[in-house]
Amino acid sequence: MGASHTHRMRVAYGDCDPSGVVFNPNYLVFYDLALTELWRAVVGGYGAMMEEGVDLQVVEATLRYKAPARFDDEIDVTIEVARLGTTSMLTRGAIHRDSTLLVELDLAYVFVDAAALTKIPIPDRFRTALEA
Amino acid sequence: MGASHTHRMRVAYGDCDPSGVVFNPNYLVFYDLALTELWRAVVGGYGAMMEEGVDLQVVEATLRYKAPARFDDEIDVTIEVARLGTTSMLTRGAIHRDSTLLVELDLAYVFVDAAALTKIPIPDRFRTALEA
Amino acid sequence: MGASHTHRMRVAYGDCDPSGVVFNPNYLVFYDLALTELWRAVVGGYGAMMEEGVDLQVVEATLRYKAPARFDDEIDVTIEVARLGTTSMLTRGAIHRDSTLLVELDLAYVFVDAAALTKIPIPDRFRTALEA
Amino acid sequence: MGASHTHRMRVAYGDCDPSGVVFNPNYLVFYDLALTELWRAVVGGYGAMMEEGVDLQVVEATLRYKAPARFDDEIDVTIEVARLGTTSMLTRGAIHRDSTLLVELDLAYVFVDAAALTKIPIPDRFRTALEA
Repeated sequence: MGASHTHRMRVAYGDCDPSGVVFNPNYLVFYDLALTELWRAVVGGYGAMMEEGVDLQVVEATLRYKAPARFDDEIDVTIEVARLGTTSMLTRGAIHRDSTLLVELDLAYVFVDAAALTKIPIPDRFRTALEA
Repeated sequence: MGASHTHRMRVAYGDCDPSGVVFNPNYLVFYDLALTELWRAVVGGYGAMMEEGVDLQVVEATLRYKAPARFDDEIDVTIEVARLGTTSMLTRGAIHRDSTLLVELDLAYVFVDAAALTKIPIPDRFRTALEA
Repeated sequence: MGASHTHRMRVAYGDCDPSGVVFNPNYLVFYDLALTELWRAVVGGYGAMMEEGVDLQVVEATLRYKAPARFDDEIDVTIEVARLGTTSMLTRGAIHRDSTLLVELDLAYVFVDAAALTKIPIPDRFRTALEA
Repeated sequence: MGASHTHRMRVAYGDCDPSGVVFNPNYLVFYDLALTELWRAVVGGYGAMMEEGVDLQVVEATLRYKAPARFDDEIDVTIEVARLGTTSMLTRGAIHRDSTLLVELDLAYVFVDAAALTKIPIPDRFRTALEA
C-alpha cells in the first residue's frame, strides 16, 4: 500500500434525490474531492500537476453501495494508493459515516499528457510521493 | 426581440432534491441547454463558435420561481434574445409545463475571447443571426 | 437477455470538466436517464412504479472508460437487463458515439420498498415486462 | 440586518466547465451550502427544521457575476438575512476569494409546509433566531 488520505465532508441537500439519499453518481464526485485532497497532502497540489502538463484519467471504477448517506451526514472519504504500474495507479477507497461503511470503491487511473490526453509513464516525483 | 428557441426536455430523477422537486440551481442548467439549442438553430453550433475563439459568459441572472417541476415532467425551456449591446446580449426566458409557467429567467451575457475571457464586440455574423 | 433500450442524448456543456471531456461521474447520470427511458418503454413509467411504493436502488456499479465524450456529442446510452434474481436486477450497458464505444457499464439494482428502502421480491408485473 | 454566516469552501474540479471556471449554476449550489451552515450556526440545523414539517423554497434569485472562481480556489460564501416578512426571508450574499468579489447574490425564500409545499408564517423560534 502507498499513500492514503481521508477527507471529511458534509452531504449537501442537492447531493440527494427524491428518495432522500445521496444520488448514486455523487459518491464518485465525493471520491474526486478525496483524490484532490490526497494530492494536496502528499504530492503538492493537483493544479500544480496540471500546470506541468500532467493529468489523471479514470479508466475503471467499481462502487459497492452498502448503506445510503443522507443530507447533512458527516462522512469520511478514504482513498489509498493500492498499486502503481508504468502508467497506471490503482486506488481503493471507502466512505464511512462514523464506523458504518457506506460505499467501497476501486478506481483505476492512468497518467496522461494534459493536452493530448495520451498515456504517459508516471513521472518520478509523483511515483516517489505516492509510494510513501 | 431577436432570435428565440424552445427546447423540450424531461426532468431527470437526479435533477430533483429530497423535497421531490427540481433543485433550484438546475433551472440554470436547463437554460444553458436551451442556449446551446438556440445556437444550433440560428447561429450554427456553440462548439463551432468556441473553435473560432469566441465564447459567452453570464454576467447577471435573475430567476423567478413560480411553480416547481418534478421528476419526469416534460418541460419547455424558451430563450429569447431581448437586446444586443456592443459586447452584451440580454435574454429573456421562461420554463413551462404545458401552459403552466414554472420559472421566468433574465440572463445577461457578454461575448468574450475564449482564451483570455476578456470582453469582445459581438462579431458581425453572430449579431446578424441573433437579430433575425 | 431481457428487455433493452437505447437512449440518444446530447452531452451538455456543464457535463464536461476543465479537461474538456465529460466528468467521470456523469456517465452514471446518463445511465440513470436510460433506465428511466427503459422503464417508460417496457414497464410503464418509473414514477408510476414509485407511486405503487416500489423503487430501485443501485447496489454495485462498474464502469470501464474506453474513450471520452465531449460537449455536444450525440451519444447512445444502451441498457440491457442481463439477469433477474429474487430481488435483484443485473444490467449491462454501453455508451457509444456512432460506432465508437465510450464506456461499458454493469449495474446491479435491488427492488426496494420505496418508503422503508428495504429489499422486496420483484413484483410479477415488473418481472414479466423485464424478461420480454 | 439579521443573522449572517460565512462558509469557507474549496472549488472542486467537477464544479468547473471546459472554459476552466465554475459553471454558472454552481454558485447557487454554493449558496445553498452556506444557507445550511447559517441554519446550523444560528437556528439549530436544517434537518431538524424539516423534521418539524417546515422547509424553505426559493422564490427569486439574482446573481451578479463579477469574476470567475477556478478549480481549487478557496472561497468564502457569505449569506445575510436582510429582511423577514410574514412568510418570506430576503437574503443578501457575496462570494469572495480573499478580498476579490466574485459573485453577488440576492435570494428570496418563503417558509413552507414541508409536505404540502404551501406558504406558512415564519414560526417564532426561527424569526427570533434569524433576527439576532
